[in-house]
Amino acid sequence: MKAKPTGPIPAGWKSLGGELAIAGRTASDILAEAGETPLFIYSRELIDRRIAQLRAALPGRIGINYAVKANPFAPVIEHMTPHVDGFDIASQGELRMVMQAGIDPDRVSFAGPGKRDRELAAAIETGVTLNCESEGEAERTLAIANGLGHRPRIAIRVNPDFELRGSGMKMGGGAKPFGVDADRVAPLARRVIEAGAQWRGLHIFTGSQALSAEAIIEAQSNVLNLAARLTEAIDAPLPKLNMGGGLGIPYFPGDEPLDLTAIGDALSARLQSLPPMLAETELCLELGRYLVGEAGVYLCRVIDRKVSYGTTYLVTDGGLHHQLAASGNFGTVVRRNYPVAIATRFDQEPAEIVNIVGCLCTPLDRLADQVTMPEAGVGDIVAVFCAGAYGATASPAAFLGHGPAREMLL
Amino acid sequence: MKAKPTGPIPAGWKSLGGELAIAGRTASDILAEAGETPLFIYSRELIDRRIAQLRAALPGRIGINYAVKANPFAPVIEHMTPHVDGFDIASQGELRMVMQAGIDPDRVSFAGPGKRDRELAAAIETGVTLNCESEGEAERTLAIANGLGHRPRIAIRVNPDFELRGSGMKMGGGAKPFGVDADRVAPLARRVIEAGAQWRGLHIFTGSQALSAEAIIEAQSNVLNLAARLTEAIDAPLPKLNMGGGLGIPYFPGDEPLDLTAIGDALSARLQSLPPMLAETELCLELGRYLVGEAGVYLCRVIDRKVSYGTTYLVTDGGLHHQLAASGNFGTVVRRNYPVAIATRFDQEPAEIVNIVGCLCTPLDRLADQVTMPEAGVGDIVAVFCAGAYGATASPAAFLGHGPAREMLL
Repeated sequence: MKAKPTGPIPAGWKSLGGELAIAGRTASDILAEAGETPLFIYSRELIDRRIAQLRAALPGRIGINYAVKANPFAPVIEHMTPHVDGFDIASQGELRMVMQAGIDPDRVSFAGPGKRDRELAAAIETGVTLNCESEGEAERTLAIANGLGHRPRIAIRVNPDFELRGSGMKMGGGAKPFGVDADRVAPLARRVIEAGAQWRGLHIFTGSQALSAEAIIEAQSNVLNLAARLTEAIDAPLPKLNMGGGLGIPYFPGDEPLDLTAIGDALSARLQSLPPMLAETELCLELGRYLVGEAGVYLCRVIDRKVSYGTTYLVTDGGLHHQLAASGNFGTVVRRNYPVAIATRFDQEPAEIVNIVGCLCTPLDRLADQVTMPEAGVGDIVAVFCAGAYGATASPAAFLGHGPAREMLL
Repeated sequence: MKAKPTGPIPAGWKSLGGELAIAGRTASDILAEAGETPLFIYSRELIDRRIAQLRAALPGRIGINYAVKANPFAPVIEHMTPHVDGFDIASQGELRMVMQAGIDPDRVSFAGPGKRDRELAAAIETGVTLNCESEGEAERTLAIANGLGHRPRIAIRVNPDFELRGSGMKMGGGAKPFGVDADRVAPLARRVIEAGAQWRGLHIFTGSQALSAEAIIEAQSNVLNLAARLTEAIDAPLPKLNMGGGLGIPYFPGDEPLDLTAIGDALSARLQSLPPMLAETELCLELGRYLVGEAGVYLCRVIDRKVSYGTTYLVTDGGLHHQLAASGNFGTVVRRNYPVAIATRFDQEPAEIVNIVGCLCTPLDRLADQVTMPEAGVGDIVAVFCAGAYGATASPAAFLGHGPAREMLL
């Protein structure tokens, strides 16, 4: 069996006594206390480090929003509260989560192409900003706000006429279910302002999971140009511009971390020559995966080691019901290995080629294919990295009845 | 925009007053009572009809097992109880479900490559049959049973040396994490019999979701040959043979229903010439998707109708968090449309090409691409068919915080 590479283990994970360490404790020690595997562990230190890197690289004027959808674990949301400037939510469920964390509604904006009436009402009553995604949604918002006797806070999500090149998910540059086509934004903005809504600005999301600084710099420049053009057409000061996200993390063999300095330098230069109508505009980036993705690890335990026709399998108690993306089954065309290690033999040299699989009774349930690992047996702990974003909640936890994994912030 | 085809709407769904009907009631009527969309509805009538078709086609000697993983909704499990012969489970969670439904443990077998010690113990204590997947698991089972003072009921899951041709998921024919390689089954069976376990037989699963009767006939014949060969080598009567499943349902454009008569006729002929050592063996098929897949429909409501650069989108309150496979993101290489209709305009002629999307803030959330539909607007109900298996529990219900869909058996 030929070895296949794994993705790069993110910077910042350390070893202790030969094991993977989190917050100064070995994986075994943490699991002995936590009880059963599987377990998602999110590292406060790595989240803080990432935010510090962003603050150091970006101009001070650029705020950082946390996209709750990436990881809505309550302690993670709470941990973010003093460290980020705003929170982006995508459902009434996420609205409840940020309210439970005691976050000021003034810091929260709500985007999503299919907001129900009850979601609009909850957002209006709570006082969070609604990023309206269509003329129809704007009218529904105005009508519901009118009925409630509240003044709604409305921003418009723009479907930009360009895309983020090389992004994992394109969210602009053609017909899209998201946002209002750029050339229809100004009339709608004037409509909501005239109807008495509090005008909160624009949301321009161009894509996600890009690893090219050049592509992000280009997209950010295009976003600022578009915002200037739209603001001129709207003919009212732009209070806030959510410039979207798009900053990717390395998952797969060959992926390189983003050049954050280049992005920050380009933004600084661009801010020097910002058109006057954006001089007072509050600017922010909306980041989810980039803040938390590399700060999480998924730990599961080997419960069988078996050989079938010469191929060795480490069968774990984890699987795609917790880490769907790592199994290669969530919107992926070609399966590639995430960064994976034997946490209990973190410092040992690789000794054999194995397949690491989950406990589900389906051939889809693969955690690592043909990877070179130290020799591991029953009881050893497997670590799947890059598990901090779109892991626990982006996986079918009820599939086959094993139930969800525990989560911890350490 | 060029139209793309949808999969075939399964037989048996009717219309009433121009709407999709379930159990003699219109979709609107059901939703008015159920409250919010989205909603999975499973039809008792269609489940019963499918089981009747199987009973009519298959030789009386062939039992029908229900693979709970396909749809573990409690009323569905309960409904199955008098209609099927056995239940196949894949986790301790599913064990709890069948016990809660009051199912006799004698009718239950438990397969899965990664059973934990606590799962083995629960299975032994309950008295269900354990389909052991490796020598290691068999030894753990014997040791745990010994510690508990119970006699375990053990079958062996075989990794067959052939596969089900054309199946959606191959589960045999080479190195696999499932089962014991065929040439190692006999020594293991003798070992568990000698250790005092109650010998329950063999489980040979060759693949799933095949639409070719010819391929299924060939695989079933191979399964019977392999069982005969292994029984001879084990040199003990074979109490039971789970012949696996593999019977597929049409999901996509061009898919044709299985020729069940051909499969039944071939099995009848084959049973005439069964080797003597299988004369007393209890035979069964393990079916999940084939029993319930076409008997379920997922209903969601249009909450926005928008046009972006000439493309019309129906934005619904449903999405991939409930119907991941229909979105094309669960282990699919090329996305194709499931059977989809406007339930509230079920009898109307197609009038326009639309994209039907979910409410999630991700471009992955597509329910139907470029489909020809009657003109629908806000409030109309979209029906996604083939939602009875691997829908609600095989989707990331927590993704983006909208929560799970309701389920009903009508």
